[in-house]
Amino acid sequence: MSTWKDRRVWLRALTWDISQEPDTPLETAEEELKRFMAVYQDGRPVVLETIEEMGESYRLSQEDKEYHITGGRTGILYGAYALIQALLLKKSLPEGVQAPCYPLRMLNSWDNMSGEIERGYAGRSLWFEGDAFSYDPARIRQLGRMLASVGVNVISLNNVNVHAPAQGLTDRLLPETAKLAALLRPFGIRIMLSVDFSLPLQRGLDTADPLDPRVEEWWKQLADGIWEKIPDLAGFLVKADSEHRPGPNAYGRTHAEGANMLARAVAPHGGVLVWRAFVYNCMQDWRDSSTDRPCAAYHIYHPLDGTFEENVILQVKYGPFDFQVREPLSPLFFGMPNTRLAMELQLAQEYTGQQIDIFAMPPMWRELFDDLGKERIRAVAAVSNLGRDDCWTGHPFAALNLYAFGRFGWDPDTEVDALIRDWIRLTYDFSQIEDEDALARVLQESRKTYEKYTAPLGLCWMVNPNNHYGPSPYGYEFQAWGTYNRADRNAVGIDRTGNGTGYTDQYPAPLAGKYADTDTCPEELLLYFHRLPYDYRMKDGRTLIQRIYDDHFEGCEEAERMQDILEKLPLGEDTTEVIERIHRQTDNAREWRDVINTFFHRLSGAEDEKNRKIYD
Amino acid sequence: MSTWKDRRVWLRALTWDISQEPDTPLETAEEELKRFMAVYQDGRPVVLETIEEMGESYRLSQEDKEYHITGGRTGILYGAYALIQALLLKKSLPEGVQAPCYPLRMLNSWDNMSGEIERGYAGRSLWFEGDAFSYDPARIRQLGRMLASVGVNVISLNNVNVHAPAQGLTDRLLPETAKLAALLRPFGIRIMLSVDFSLPLQRGLDTADPLDPRVEEWWKQLADGIWEKIPDLAGFLVKADSEHRPGPNAYGRTHAEGANMLARAVAPHGGVLVWRAFVYNCMQDWRDSSTDRPCAAYHIYHPLDGTFEENVILQVKYGPFDFQVREPLSPLFFGMPNTRLAMELQLAQEYTGQQIDIFAMPPMWRELFDDLGKERIRAVAAVSNLGRDDCWTGHPFAALNLYAFGRFGWDPDTEVDALIRDWIRLTYDFSQIEDEDALARVLQESRKTYEKYTAPLGLCWMVNPNNHYGPSPYGYEFQAWGTYNRADRNAVGIDRTGNGTGYTDQYPAPLAGKYADTDTCPEELLLYFHRLPYDYRMKDGRTLIQRIYDDHFEGCEEAERMQDILEKLPLGEDTTEVIERIHRQTDNAREWRDVINTFFHRLSGAEDEKNRKIYD
Repeated sequence: MSTWKDRRVWLRALTWDISQEPDTPLETAEEELKRFMAVYQDGRPVVLETIEEMGESYRLSQEDKEYHITGGRTGILYGAYALIQALLLKKSLPEGVQAPCYPLRMLNSWDNMSGEIERGYAGRSLWFEGDAFSYDPARIRQLGRMLASVGVNVISLNNVNVHAPAQGLTDRLLPETAKLAALLRPFGIRIMLSVDFSLPLQRGLDTADPLDPRVEEWWKQLADGIWEKIPDLAGFLVKADSEHRPGPNAYGRTHAEGANMLARAVAPHGGVLVWRAFVYNCMQDWRDSSTDRPCAAYHIYHPLDGTFEENVILQVKYGPFDFQVREPLSPLFFGMPNTRLAMELQLAQEYTGQQIDIFAMPPMWRELFDDLGKERIRAVAAVSNLGRDDCWTGHPFAALNLYAFGRFGWDPDTEVDALIRDWIRLTYDFSQIEDEDALARVLQESRKTYEKYTAPLGLCWMVNPNNHYGPSPYGYEFQAWGTYNRADRNAVGIDRTGNGTGYTDQYPAPLAGKYADTDTCPEELLLYFHRLPYDYRMKDGRTLIQRIYDDHFEGCEEAERMQDILEKLPLGEDTTEVIERIHRQTDNAREWRDVINTFFHRLSGAEDEKNRKIYD
Repeated sequence: MSTWKDRRVWLRALTWDISQEPDTPLETAEEELKRFMAVYQDGRPVVLETIEEMGESYRLSQEDKEYHITGGRTGILYGAYALIQALLLKKSLPEGVQAPCYPLRMLNSWDNMSGEIERGYAGRSLWFEGDAFSYDPARIRQLGRMLASVGVNVISLNNVNVHAPAQGLTDRLLPETAKLAALLRPFGIRIMLSVDFSLPLQRGLDTADPLDPRVEEWWKQLADGIWEKIPDLAGFLVKADSEHRPGPNAYGRTHAEGANMLARAVAPHGGVLVWRAFVYNCMQDWRDSSTDRPCAAYHIYHPLDGTFEENVILQVKYGPFDFQVREPLSPLFFGMPNTRLAMELQLAQEYTGQQIDIFAMPPMWRELFDDLGKERIRAVAAVSNLGRDDCWTGHPFAALNLYAFGRFGWDPDTEVDALIRDWIRLTYDFSQIEDEDALARVLQESRKTYEKYTAPLGLCWMVNPNNHYGPSPYGYEFQAWGTYNRADRNAVGIDRTGNGTGYTDQYPAPLAGKYADTDTCPEELLLYFHRLPYDYRMKDGRTLIQRIYDDHFEGCEEAERMQDILEKLPLGEDTTEVIERIHRQTDNAREWRDVINTFFHRLSGAEDEKNRKIYD
């Protein structure tokens, strides 16, 4: 147990700990409202009315003398936080019944029981340390409050790469797993567990073949035992046959056969089986130009559409690669109409600045959801960006992404500027509207800036291998991960149209044509889909190489301007982290600018038309 | 304690364990000869005569009815092993007194107390495991025998990067350190310890400033305590102010001031202070083309020539970079006439195939010593290639390098082909001379082959960062280690002449001019010293780029021919490792060939004149 010096992030106004150990969301709501209204002092009481059938929904109203919240078992708590935030933001209360768009709004922790978090940039695990559970219940309640305040309702505790001894979470350590689940329950949060497909082998069976009746029976009994202790467990999360994880392929079985067997084990308890679609050949030969990683998942899963059990959710990363700065939507979103899909986002900024560089995700998500159409998915998931740092998310601004994820999961039509301003107003105490405007602009433009100084125009993967921070334009070029840019002295990129790897053909008609044609392909994705010579003319008449140079100089200048802005903002207790990190970001931006410009200058020989410094 | 399944490497004929726990080299000699002659059965007894003043020297003679060995305290044992090997090899006995060229022939282990070996490719540490000493004394005696049989007389136990808890080897763990020293003493082997320059700070002093009298006194007392327990300790080995290690620079002191202070502490006990000259800026900005890593050590140490205490040995890696496949000798060997120098070799094949690929070092060392002149140094050191593998050295053929290191340290004029054949005959039981010839040729040519398929013509560093195995031509290009090739579409390499970084000027007159002129510079080192366009004409009329292509195709073919040869050789108990590894080597060679050829083809656009396959 450590002593936490928690920041309250966007719940800054909630200065108290939740110390009553509430048993239900209703009790949580009651305590929060009692404490809040005592401070808020507008004199009006809040009347709570639970209508069980409303589930997660709620309705707020304001009478002359009191506020009313009507809501279901969890809805009542969501209503309470909605009321608190509306009052803080001095907004009128939302009209009518508020209900979430997606029933599952899942945060995926990639925490190992060692305490390390895979791709974690905010310190160590909130609940594991030294191969055991280790946490301060008060901080877990604080987490519960944060997540409930934006409607996140499921959290998976352990890494999808299930490293020992995390296999024990479902048996040996189950009583402790249940204890943590109980702590989160009064916040309307159910836990989920990542399971190891080969677990039967580790528990005495001689096979993990999903079609072997003994295996099915084994999982069924395991599930029975777990749900007995955690009756509201959300389900299992599985990474199988991916990056050396065990899976059904070892037995000649399909992903559907693997997922369905597990799904049947959890179905009697109302559990879901979340199966990750992040599958590709991670032992590719770089010489092989016919295999194309973005094609992989569609090849595997599209033929299985309609064959999954009702309670299977196929969790698909937003882009076909892996959380790059810019990717098109995975074609699976369009090619699996008869399968329940979740879209997986990554709050952890693995490729997007590692919570050192600012990368506010809502503008990106707005684009994704606009392209997607919200009805194509049934759930949202996001890899967590949380850890034991005082500010929870490494960079204090990274809390915006967590906040926004909850709001997008509730309402994917969320308008970005309003959302960012809500977060700023809840988090900071700006007396000048100019400060709020300035920060909102920094956040709004942060993705575009980061995109400009890193890999150009959807090229992806020009990062240092392993740690994924900083530039290495050929770092992954001759590796086995299927991540090539094939830049030479004349051209760069891979032709993914029908003339090339055929990837664009995986999209439905209007999109396929749009991406396949350089005239209609969004310029930000030009090098994702096409191989182009350096003297290719962009729409504005610049050459491709000049656009690359310009973007990199501009991106770096924009980062430097961000620094000027942030150094003047009154950020309170976040100041130290923000200032320290923006300096690291500008260093990083300069490094990216110079490495990428030098790399392409060495290859192309093209001089910058504006004669800016490009190193030899 | 594990059960060892030792191979006897080149001492295959010595099938017995040394179980008598000898107290002195003489006792060791007596036991070895008694057991050996019982097997060898030529009926002649061996008469041993110790003449203390002969030290490490010995003299062998053969009378009608007996062999005579006259020798010093350790010389008598060296004589015994020399006799045994001469008899096994059916060679006539060497005439006259045999004495080593260098009094210190040191093996440097980079063993951490965790049991891991930094850059170790033959399993875990022979004496550390789990932050403690852990070994089987019988195996340590076997090690002692191996080293004594070729005259290695000092072994440093712990990594020059002194990681906790290895600091305790000189105090808390001293009794156990002494125990291991006692085990090796009857083999004429003295131990050495790598020490942490900042140790006083960790033991309660508020400074490690070498000019602070309290620090000098502290080290003196430490040394007194150590030598009391290990009276023949060889000395201390120090890596200071190098790659983030602590050192005198932190106090504004020179390397000489740091080394001399320690040297005075160990001098009363006859100890030496070995100070590593591997110092450079490892936080370089790749944009900075005026700083040039190979220049660094000379800049630092040349001005200090003549200022070191008598018992300081400056240990200089053979080349100014870091054990690359081909480097010129460090200019320090020519620029420190008034300083005792050791040449540091690396048996551990960090950059030379990692004991997977075959890389017999004697041909390289022959060149180095011929260029050097043996009198320029006073000692030799080599980073160990040993570990807990059954065959001791990962690849069974890597034992040749250990064997040869001992023989070169004894006699740097050693002739390579004879040495390789001695090792083969001692190690393998070939009934056909053709097999011996075939293996000798593989070993003789192995360095040339490896060189051909890896980085071209002295360019160095085109390896995967961190693990240093396999190709990554730009992997270190934008990093902080000072390791750049600056390849672009027109040219490759760095001009290190007076027109460039001035590195060649660090050499004395004839060498400086030879290296600075492309006409006289050895072609194997062309890209070490020069930046050249791809169409540069080599002496044989080929272009530089064609030479690069040719070398890579040839190197790979040579590796494949090696495989054919090795698959037919009767290698006894080594067969499995050798065959498994040559397959990995040919895979590695193909990977290098294709990555390097593709890299330069993408840059230069030049087609292979012979139309062989170069991937896009």
